[in-house]
Amino acid sequence: MGLLESISTPGDLAGLTDEQLETLASEIRDFLVATCARTGGHLGPNLGVVELTMAIHRVFESPKDRVVFDTGHQAYVHKLLTGRREGFEKLRQEGGLSGYPSQAESEHDIVENSHASTALSYADGLAKAYAIREEDRHVVAVIGDGALTGGMAWEALNNIAVARGSKLVIVVNDNGRSYTPTIGGLANALTSLRTNPRYEQILEAVKKRLNAVKGIGPVTYDALHAMKRGLKDALAPQGLFEDLGLKYVGPVDGHDRAAMEHVLAQAKRFNGPVIVHALTRKGFGYDAAERHEADQFHSPGPFDVDSGLEVPKGRIWTDVFADEIVHIGQRRKDVVGITAAMVHPVGLHHFQARFPERTFDVGIAEQHAATSAAGLAMGGLHPVVAVYATFLNRAFDQVLMDCALHRCGVTFVLDRSGVTGDDGASHNGMWDMSILQVVPGLRLAAPRDATRLRELLNEAVEVEDAPTVVRFPKGPPPEDIPAVGKAGGADVLVRNGTKDVLIVAVGSMATTAVEVADRLVAQGIGVTVVDPRWVKPVDPAIVQLAREHKLVVSVEDNGKVGGCGAVLLQTLNEAGVTTPFRLHGIPQAFLEHAKRAAILERIGLTPQALALSIVEDITASTAAESLLESDQPL
Amino acid sequence: MGLLESISTPGDLAGLTDEQLETLASEIRDFLVATCARTGGHLGPNLGVVELTMAIHRVFESPKDRVVFDTGHQAYVHKLLTGRREGFEKLRQEGGLSGYPSQAESEHDIVENSHASTALSYADGLAKAYAIREEDRHVVAVIGDGALTGGMAWEALNNIAVARGSKLVIVVNDNGRSYTPTIGGLANALTSLRTNPRYEQILEAVKKRLNAVKGIGPVTYDALHAMKRGLKDALAPQGLFEDLGLKYVGPVDGHDRAAMEHVLAQAKRFNGPVIVHALTRKGFGYDAAERHEADQFHSPGPFDVDSGLEVPKGRIWTDVFADEIVHIGQRRKDVVGITAAMVHPVGLHHFQARFPERTFDVGIAEQHAATSAAGLAMGGLHPVVAVYATFLNRAFDQVLMDCALHRCGVTFVLDRSGVTGDDGASHNGMWDMSILQVVPGLRLAAPRDATRLRELLNEAVEVEDAPTVVRFPKGPPPEDIPAVGKAGGADVLVRNGTKDVLIVAVGSMATTAVEVADRLVAQGIGVTVVDPRWVKPVDPAIVQLAREHKLVVSVEDNGKVGGCGAVLLQTLNEAGVTTPFRLHGIPQAFLEHAKRAAILERIGLTPQALALSIVEDITASTAAESLLESDQPL
Repeated sequence: MGLLESISTPGDLAGLTDEQLETLASEIRDFLVATCARTGGHLGPNLGVVELTMAIHRVFESPKDRVVFDTGHQAYVHKLLTGRREGFEKLRQEGGLSGYPSQAESEHDIVENSHASTALSYADGLAKAYAIREEDRHVVAVIGDGALTGGMAWEALNNIAVARGSKLVIVVNDNGRSYTPTIGGLANALTSLRTNPRYEQILEAVKKRLNAVKGIGPVTYDALHAMKRGLKDALAPQGLFEDLGLKYVGPVDGHDRAAMEHVLAQAKRFNGPVIVHALTRKGFGYDAAERHEADQFHSPGPFDVDSGLEVPKGRIWTDVFADEIVHIGQRRKDVVGITAAMVHPVGLHHFQARFPERTFDVGIAEQHAATSAAGLAMGGLHPVVAVYATFLNRAFDQVLMDCALHRCGVTFVLDRSGVTGDDGASHNGMWDMSILQVVPGLRLAAPRDATRLRELLNEAVEVEDAPTVVRFPKGPPPEDIPAVGKAGGADVLVRNGTKDVLIVAVGSMATTAVEVADRLVAQGIGVTVVDPRWVKPVDPAIVQLAREHKLVVSVEDNGKVGGCGAVLLQTLNEAGVTTPFRLHGIPQAFLEHAKRAAILERIGLTPQALALSIVEDITASTAAESLLESDQPL
Repeated sequence: MGLLESISTPGDLAGLTDEQLETLASEIRDFLVATCARTGGHLGPNLGVVELTMAIHRVFESPKDRVVFDTGHQAYVHKLLTGRREGFEKLRQEGGLSGYPSQAESEHDIVENSHASTALSYADGLAKAYAIREEDRHVVAVIGDGALTGGMAWEALNNIAVARGSKLVIVVNDNGRSYTPTIGGLANALTSLRTNPRYEQILEAVKKRLNAVKGIGPVTYDALHAMKRGLKDALAPQGLFEDLGLKYVGPVDGHDRAAMEHVLAQAKRFNGPVIVHALTRKGFGYDAAERHEADQFHSPGPFDVDSGLEVPKGRIWTDVFADEIVHIGQRRKDVVGITAAMVHPVGLHHFQARFPERTFDVGIAEQHAATSAAGLAMGGLHPVVAVYATFLNRAFDQVLMDCALHRCGVTFVLDRSGVTGDDGASHNGMWDMSILQVVPGLRLAAPRDATRLRELLNEAVEVEDAPTVVRFPKGPPPEDIPAVGKAGGADVLVRNGTKDVLIVAVGSMATTAVEVADRLVAQGIGVTVVDPRWVKPVDPAIVQLAREHKLVVSVEDNGKVGGCGAVLLQTLNEAGVTTPFRLHGIPQAFLEHAKRAAILERIGLTPQALALSIVEDITASTAAESLLESDQPL
């Protein structure tokens, strides 16, 4: 039995010798690599925080002291040290461990959200609450250097700097990159610190440590070189923190557990807000991960442990966008690309390679992404802002006020919209089609397949007097679904038999709707399926179609409240169309992590469930009709 | 004729002598004081930027060069220098000048939004666009020190720092306070700079200048003292900017026009991003304004020029909240108050005076306000976050993910919800009741009068497992409207005659609805008026009432799309209630500035218009009914 099996609470770390702790670290790394190879997961970030997390749990007393992880994907080690080893069997699967901290899993977890740059704000609140309640508890916030590019983190630091009574330790986990190498002045402003003698010392120490890592394979020259660059960049923030009046300790080698414990204990004794600046290496100790300059091991799918090669994936929606935006960029010299620290994940890497001067990675800064896009549009360009759907929530006010109020031609491309599944509640892109409905002038498109994505993206970048949005889900696009006709700007996908049921299928639900239609037609029910393509504004042709049918059914991969179906219902009501209406979408609730398909099944967005529900609705409305016709009192 | 009358474009400033320019500055101040005394407006901020704005327009060539004002309320001087003197007759009135920059008014205006901390992002985009398009144009962004506490500004600076090719001049207009004295580390971190010899020099210069101001009244000791404090605070940011690698010039006396011109010309020649740090004094040159430590002259209503006394206002909604939250604070030691740089405007000043250790002003940082509130709640307290409704948009993601996902008992109090009028499109609080509908678990209350505000606020702070929101409009509350009965948790306000029409009146629309009822009853129509009190979640009793009536009418002071009416319609549809439904609210568009009453009239939210519309709906539906009854084909 290994040491890891003997750890069920942080307290179990207390009695271990240095040597045992080193063995434990090594066991944790092996465990993480083996687990993620099987299930996929945020391997790179967690390999980087093994010693750091062990040190935190030896110096502080969770759960009396609270540990808050920013972008909770770096909490695997924390989970291992708090008695959740067995849950990793089904990491990010239904019934298994969440990929993020979870209050339901453990009393050691408190913040579940995985949107970046929030930890310092939570921690500020927690520490102030303990001070007011006169509870002797420390709060430890672990935040990556990338998350410091988000404005929220700055707002928090500005407040923490004057919170003298807060027992708050901020561990800046500085690996010199967020998802990709860190962006902006924060990373570049190290000129005056390059000559810092500590820098060379630490570099030497980390080199020695790297060379001492056993059984993982040789440390390549590239990895060392990258580390050196990372270390240099890492020294920048000190001046900033100190200018704000924050006590600063560091930089310290985050892979030297004993050194980490030493500075954390120092910070704990200070009894006020302290920054501990730890230098770490993402993927540390697993050669294949360290080799990846492009950061694919941030969150790989299942992979082969020896080669580090991921199980090949088919072509996904992101790839379609990635290719098409390059074509558009070739044709249109005024198109520029913006990403919030996710060039690769959102598919702007080909565009960046081809048009580096027209690509802007703004850091984890969706607000700035949106408003600087408005500025670029005012200056005569057409920006394409590519983000995950869930992260657009961060820029709602900027889309509304800065882009729409100013009638700016900015195109937002929302990847991973709808149910994403594995990553849990905070990664589902189920809010965008509701909140964007209120934005005056904004046009919103939901392509049903790869061909429509290309089409709609091209249409979107032609709109110069309003923001446009194109949203699509995670994973591979379905087979193309050809239109059998047009209705206004909408595509008719099925037109079969009498006009019994009109299914308005939004985006990725088109494939499902066509299957529903097959089932209904088999039962002798006449069906029309229409894909609006542009869901906002509502196409008058769809209102007309609704008028002509006996039942309208809307299906969308978005929250039910205020989404496309809701606005269609509102539009029909205003137009005096009284056709019975049935709305299908995601229940307005936070969804537990599970596979996308499993969730769709659970919430009734499968062809079977939808067909059944429609048959029931028809039966009910036919029954009502016959009641009416028979003149019986209701 | 004064000099001011001779200025119709910035070019007219070119030929003036120093003496003439000084006279002009003085005329501008007199004009601003006289105008704002009559119309109200953002007097203080504009008195502070007279010389600064003149200098910008002498050094740069607007509109070829672009001037972007953060929080556009500091653009009055800019408007005067760009040919809009006459429009001030009707400042912030229908058909008159907007209180903010406006593209429709002038080619010299580009950014209209008045939400803070955006200017640097716009400017970054503009400057990058000009660089890419190889246009030789400069961008000047004017931002107050207070706006630098907003996270967006940090995100922008981090990007601007590495935008070497941007011809971008950032003027930090540093008056040592945002709306109230500036908050946080930014303001406090000046230790190392206190001994800066420049500080004493500039202080002397400004003292001399202050003493030389003629015809305005004696400069009080207090004003000088405050300025001294302001100057000290002002010196902090330099280190920060330089750590980011931004070129920094200053500090310079912002009331010394010649000095400003000198540094601006220097900055222009640099042809890269430069920070110009100008020290100014809000209210400079008008004694009554400078005397106000509490910053009432930020944006006074009409006032007496000599005394500086505002025309007395009656008791407003804010006052009701301000008093009640103190009562709650006395009873509940766990209640804490949070404001985003607006202690006074949102009515937390009494609470702050009584419970200073339980009040947190976080700066212009709504994101941090919401998430630190989540942290405070996790730590066992009940935070009350008081902000203007329109600014909650900035924290949508934080309300959703950080508060609601974590089931935190945080109460948001939204002042100035609905149509606010004078301040134009970006200040109307017409979005909150739509976007908040999608937040799982959140409870939303809209009190109809002062008594209900007290009641609902007390109910809200009792909810410990979900965020709650209480929203009310600008201005005075109406006479109390007693309930004549209950329906579930809702109040029945009118129950008269047969169940013809059910009016669901949200918040401030209750008064209107009762008047509508009077008109309908006079015409023999039976009316029930119900105030849901809690509009989210929908009360089942209202669904039942809807079922029993022949027409349901919803009225709300919020955008029509996705608001309370829309969700009620959706709920009724899901419950199979087919009663005809008519939804009234604010059209989903950006509204031009005008008086609140004028806007309500324009958009049909008056008793007359609503009554007329309802009568028409009844007539139409009665006609349809008789058609049905007479068995004629449709």
